[in-house]
Amino acid sequence: MTHQHPIQRVTMITLGVADLARSRAFYHALGWHPHSETESVSFFQLQGAALGLYALAKLADDMDRSVSELGTGAMTVGQNFADEEAVDAAFNIAMQAGATAIKRPQAVFWGGYSGYFADPDGHVWELAVNPYWPLAADGSLTLPDAD
Amino acid sequence: MTHQHPIQRVTMITLGVADLARSRAFYHALGWHPHSETESVSFFQLQGAALGLYALAKLADDMDRSVSELGTGAMTVGQNFADEEAVDAAFNIAMQAGATAIKRPQAVFWGGYSGYFADPDGHVWELAVNPYWPLAADGSLTLPDAD
Repeated sequence: MTHQHPIQRVTMITLGVADLARSRAFYHALGWHPHSETESVSFFQLQGAALGLYALAKLADDMDRSVSELGTGAMTVGQNFADEEAVDAAFNIAMQAGATAIKRPQAVFWGGYSGYFADPDGHVWELAVNPYWPLAADGSLTLPDAD
Repeated sequence: MTHQHPIQRVTMITLGVADLARSRAFYHALGWHPHSETESVSFFQLQGAALGLYALAKLADDMDRSVSELGTGAMTVGQNFADEEAVDAAFNIAMQAGATAIKRPQAVFWGGYSGYFADPDGHVWELAVNPYWPLAADGSLTLPDAD
């Protein structure tokens, strides 16, 4: 992929949830089917994107924030990129645009590389490379088949 | 479209913003180009979906809430549907799933029909018909050309 930035896309929506079992039951009752689940997250395939239910404490850890700091940031909008340089470039553009750095892009415990910034109202954007989730040529995200 | 519910999709992400001019300048500095703008909202085309920056007071009005009640709900995830019956059906499924009703589906000032509910953590979902934004056969949303 090229390093043209920033592409107008959201490939990941993350909802921080206090009780993952309760939230899983709720979305299941809505008729949604998870693509995959772990101890701390459930992923759902959207059209060209994904939605995650993420245990609040884990989401806070991922942002280097406390749960009480999350506020509006308990929901994040995300852009996935093909490589770390693309994340760094997009993060720098956000800084130049006046964003508030939450976490500078760095390797993270789940095996990816990501950073978080807040827009002027505190809405939290994640910029990430997820090596397990290759992007389509158009930048869209289709969750891969489970192994 | 059929009334199969609920489709796993997010076709609209709305960020409630305190100062629309400030937010427009920020997203412009990110390199984003609005599809269209009015006094109280800016819309951006995403891949098969749209993102809106919506003046907080207007967003609160649209939800029949006060700005101080918005909390996490100052960001919403939305599903657009082809007709009012589909919105009503999806809203009822959400109620049966244990969602908290914020505003029952009804005609709204901007010419559409929409309802809001909150999931167990207060994340706000909007279910809407927007007569100005026809959906593709796969349920995705492409903002129409401006007149």
